[in-house]
Amino acid sequence: MLKRVALWVMYDGTAFSGYQVQPGKRTVQLEVEKALRTLHKGTDVRVHASGRTDTGVHARGQVLHFDSPLMIPTERWPKAINSCLPEDVRIIEASYVQADFHSRYAAVKKEYRYRVFTPKHPDVWRRNTTFHFPYSIDFERVKKAASYLLGTHDFSSFCASNTDVQDKVRTLYELEVCKQGDEIVFRLVGSGFLYNMVRIIVGTLLEVGIGKRVPDELATILEAEDRTKAGKTAPGNGLFLWKVSYEYEIFSDEF
Amino acid sequence: MLKRVALWVMYDGTAFSGYQVQPGKRTVQLEVEKALRTLHKGTDVRVHASGRTDTGVHARGQVLHFDSPLMIPTERWPKAINSCLPEDVRIIEASYVQADFHSRYAAVKKEYRYRVFTPKHPDVWRRNTTFHFPYSIDFERVKKAASYLLGTHDFSSFCASNTDVQDKVRTLYELEVCKQGDEIVFRLVGSGFLYNMVRIIVGTLLEVGIGKRVPDELATILEAEDRTKAGKTAPGNGLFLWKVSYEYEIFSDEF
Repeated sequence: MLKRVALWVMYDGTAFSGYQVQPGKRTVQLEVEKALRTLHKGTDVRVHASGRTDTGVHARGQVLHFDSPLMIPTERWPKAINSCLPEDVRIIEASYVQADFHSRYAAVKKEYRYRVFTPKHPDVWRRNTTFHFPYSIDFERVKKAASYLLGTHDFSSFCASNTDVQDKVRTLYELEVCKQGDEIVFRLVGSGFLYNMVRIIVGTLLEVGIGKRVPDELATILEAEDRTKAGKTAPGNGLFLWKVSYEYEIFSDEF
Repeated sequence: MLKRVALWVMYDGTAFSGYQVQPGKRTVQLEVEKALRTLHKGTDVRVHASGRTDTGVHARGQVLHFDSPLMIPTERWPKAINSCLPEDVRIIEASYVQADFHSRYAAVKKEYRYRVFTPKHPDVWRRNTTFHFPYSIDFERVKKAASYLLGTHDFSSFCASNTDVQDKVRTLYELEVCKQGDEIVFRLVGSGFLYNMVRIIVGTLLEVGIGKRVPDELATILEAEDRTKAGKTAPGNGLFLWKVSYEYEIFSDEF
């Protein structure tokens, strides 16, 4: 009898060519499936994620699921899998879920965060987890610009052109910008995100912040439904998949 | 005419076998001397540091010096050297100093910091910059124990046994322990530090913090002048050489 297991996974994306398996590349999926194969004595176990992440992108709250015949108590799963994983991926919690649960299709909300490091001098310890953007940023302008993006819109202007997704309408529930120490952190909560959407939004808002664009331009960019109207794609290293929400809480710890 | 240049250097120690050149190893000194050799068109330039750091140990404020015939304005040195350095070492500032300045012998005070990460779950992004010690720590006990170490003492009990230093008397001016978010940070300022001294002090104080030792034991450990009486050496990855002070300020920025 197979039981479905959901995993809360954290990873440092620096040394990965993204989440998804690609021939000859070190990916998160590859490492997790390798660990599960070891635990299942050589049997392949296919893992499904809430979504992919690109090269260098991090995850604090990625959710995966897989089916297993092993009778391991919930609280033992993380330790068992972690013992077979490299240090840059950690399973924080596991949970048995219903047989029809799907980490991707059942997701109702996703939160991403994006960290920008603004001091003049670089910080060697944060070079892989923040975007170093050493300019003076006008906070109020960024907030004003951000407000245009809230709600339900066609986000074509904020989607990488190389995508085959047809429906580009998404709902952005929250878009907060706040100072945390010497960083500026963007927090975006939405129904779902298009390819590169967070990074293009952040890149465009930063251009507003340094005076390269006026806040009201965001309305025009959205309406244009044209990627070339928005700003640059901010680099992947500042991006974190922070949390994936489902209709009910899957994990017991504060996720 | 040679002029002496002092450098304020920051490095992420994770991928280095420490500061000092060792055959076949990747060290900070090797990388800096390589960069200077490039800038000096193939001529070897010997670099001197305020002190070594071990494998995995970081530096926020390492100070180096070297002599050069190049007539480069102060403010251009960092950019010039950084363009030849890997991303995990950065020159923050340069300064022309007197010909008899010595980064090591002229140092009058050093500050080290040690970061301890106490939550149950590991944090993949801080695995190389904090010591993961997921136990409940009694702060007041640690502070009480730390107070015995302040002042001038023979620190033999807190010195790795494989050292040839004869005089083990040092002065500890400050030893602060404070909470910073979900971390405990130790801050030590002293006249100088013996080999592994900070790491043995932190290891011992943590043993007091979890109740393995009583605070008053620190007095006995000091008196014993015997390394075996103190606690474990805390790992190198939590340690930062924070600042080196000289009789006068060498750098203009807040160092």
